[in-house]
Amino acid sequence: MTEQNEYRFLKACRGEPTDVTPIWFMRQAGRYMKVYRDLKEKHTFLEMCKTPELAAEVTLQPLDVLGVDAAIIFADILLPLEPMGTGLEFTAGDGPVVPRPVKDIKDVEKLRPVDAEEDLGFVGDAIRIVRQEISGKMPLIGFAGAPFTLCSYMIEGGKSRDFTATKLMMFEAPEMWSLLMDKVCTMLVDYLKMQVKAGAQALQIFDSWVGCMGPYDYERFVLPHTRRIISELKDSGVPVINFSTGTSTLLDVVARAGGDVVSFDWRIHLDDAWKYIGFDRAVQGNLDPTLLFAPIPILKERVKDVLKRAAGRPGHIFNLGHGILQHTPVDHVKAVVDMVHEYHHE
Amino acid sequence: MTEQNEYRFLKACRGEPTDVTPIWFMRQAGRYMKVYRDLKEKHTFLEMCKTPELAAEVTLQPLDVLGVDAAIIFADILLPLEPMGTGLEFTAGDGPVVPRPVKDIKDVEKLRPVDAEEDLGFVGDAIRIVRQEISGKMPLIGFAGAPFTLCSYMIEGGKSRDFTATKLMMFEAPEMWSLLMDKVCTMLVDYLKMQVKAGAQALQIFDSWVGCMGPYDYERFVLPHTRRIISELKDSGVPVINFSTGTSTLLDVVARAGGDVVSFDWRIHLDDAWKYIGFDRAVQGNLDPTLLFAPIPILKERVKDVLKRAAGRPGHIFNLGHGILQHTPVDHVKAVVDMVHEYHHE
Repeated sequence: MTEQNEYRFLKACRGEPTDVTPIWFMRQAGRYMKVYRDLKEKHTFLEMCKTPELAAEVTLQPLDVLGVDAAIIFADILLPLEPMGTGLEFTAGDGPVVPRPVKDIKDVEKLRPVDAEEDLGFVGDAIRIVRQEISGKMPLIGFAGAPFTLCSYMIEGGKSRDFTATKLMMFEAPEMWSLLMDKVCTMLVDYLKMQVKAGAQALQIFDSWVGCMGPYDYERFVLPHTRRIISELKDSGVPVINFSTGTSTLLDVVARAGGDVVSFDWRIHLDDAWKYIGFDRAVQGNLDPTLLFAPIPILKERVKDVLKRAAGRPGHIFNLGHGILQHTPVDHVKAVVDMVHEYHHE
Repeated sequence: MTEQNEYRFLKACRGEPTDVTPIWFMRQAGRYMKVYRDLKEKHTFLEMCKTPELAAEVTLQPLDVLGVDAAIIFADILLPLEPMGTGLEFTAGDGPVVPRPVKDIKDVEKLRPVDAEEDLGFVGDAIRIVRQEISGKMPLIGFAGAPFTLCSYMIEGGKSRDFTATKLMMFEAPEMWSLLMDKVCTMLVDYLKMQVKAGAQALQIFDSWVGCMGPYDYERFVLPHTRRIISELKDSGVPVINFSTGTSTLLDVVARAGGDVVSFDWRIHLDDAWKYIGFDRAVQGNLDPTLLFAPIPILKERVKDVLKRAAGRPGHIFNLGHGILQHTPVDHVKAVVDMVHEYHHE
């Protein structure tokens, strides 16, 4: 049996039975850990992302401490925006800023095509270092932002509350929106394939902000593009996780975009969500990240509730509905891993 | 026939057939209108809320311009926080700030009981002025924040992204949470009854932030309280609208909290939502507010889609999924009113 076939995380991605439910966390490396904060004092966030040795170090930080079943490469979904030409800055506290946002067709036309090896090769290098370190222990997940979420940053110039400019481009200039999404998709397929070539054994596509959309607009303006990416990644041979948050009512249309695994948040019971998606597909989720602050007995009750709803069906990967929050107690995160690994379905 | 029985908005609240679909907008008075901005230059937001003549003036501003079927009193959901003792400030650009947030049981215990007539009588006075002005033309809606949304402001000290402190109080100190919610509910029932006494002909309860909750926690920590308020308002004799946003997957449990009308946002198709809620109940919604920026033909197509999904069933009140956004073109808002009034179900 090859290494690939033995990991419980990869088995669950393929819908195969596992000894216990596999678990990993979005943002399992990050500010809630002291080792991360110490490193962050010496380097900027972008330096850490772009220096393969540092990115690899951060990726490895939580693995032994937590005992999770998969690593995810440390990077940021917005890294491709720099080579595309819109710029990218991280200001302390305020989150990401895109200094030259896409306003009109000229801005879309002048976006540069990205050569993943050349422009984002540092992510591939970090992947290669991590694979050497964890080979035989656990698989490594690569990732990228989904086209909607990336385009929303490119258009709004940063985070947005109402996504007015993004939606307005869809409504007023659907051809411009399509062209922009096409360019981003082309970049993404190339970037994700490069990650697989470097050693990523699964891929997650983060559509963090698509929950602002209604089903009507998701179907017209998002679905064809996300579907294209996932479909073009088929021949890479690794499972793809289609992640979004705030999309509980969009799940049937989100699921139509594809993905071996569909990941959703806590706004819906796991069993209800799985029914929408179809039991023939694997699912990932769905604990509320704030529960990691709760007293252990409460946390335990809620972890059990998620596991019970999974009902021992093969193809459940335990995770939060979104990333680990700052100030989360590390021992609670570790406790969840143990609870999940110790749980046995009746 | 009494005045009450003739208004198409009130008929729809009761699930009775109407000549055309009634329509009004959340935040139909506000910054997108020049008359409002002009008045705002001379007064602070809180002055406008607390001076009955000014609040009445703002309430009346959009009515003739837009041709809507209901007025809603100009006020803010956070006004009761001042007499309760947590303080309330509006800083330019940053939104509301609660300077003395509720941190522990002592803070909960020292919250002052509110005498609605005494402490919030200016809202009643504004209602009386507006009723005199619009009597015979259209009904007036009173409103308040829902207990969850108010408590989240009181605990977080302002707006929040993850509502960690609020959820932590539920998880760590459920008795404290219950006591706080009870106090807020007692205040709300008294405050809303005072509005009805002053002349409000319908009531809307705004649970703007409850979409951060999963169904498990909504059921345990929110449902009993919201249900209590709505049930205690039964004998006031006016219809109650149970409004929330971002709660599309919670709709069946939200609907269990009660309300003659359930109002929801654009993240779900109107027909799907109505099915969950039950066709025996009236519904309100659910156009995406950003669509008001879209070119008229697109806007028209989308207004029609909402109306088609309502399928001519009695008990649909047309509205947005949330309030009108700043910079929204007034003529587009007006155009939607006309589209809705001109539409006839086939």
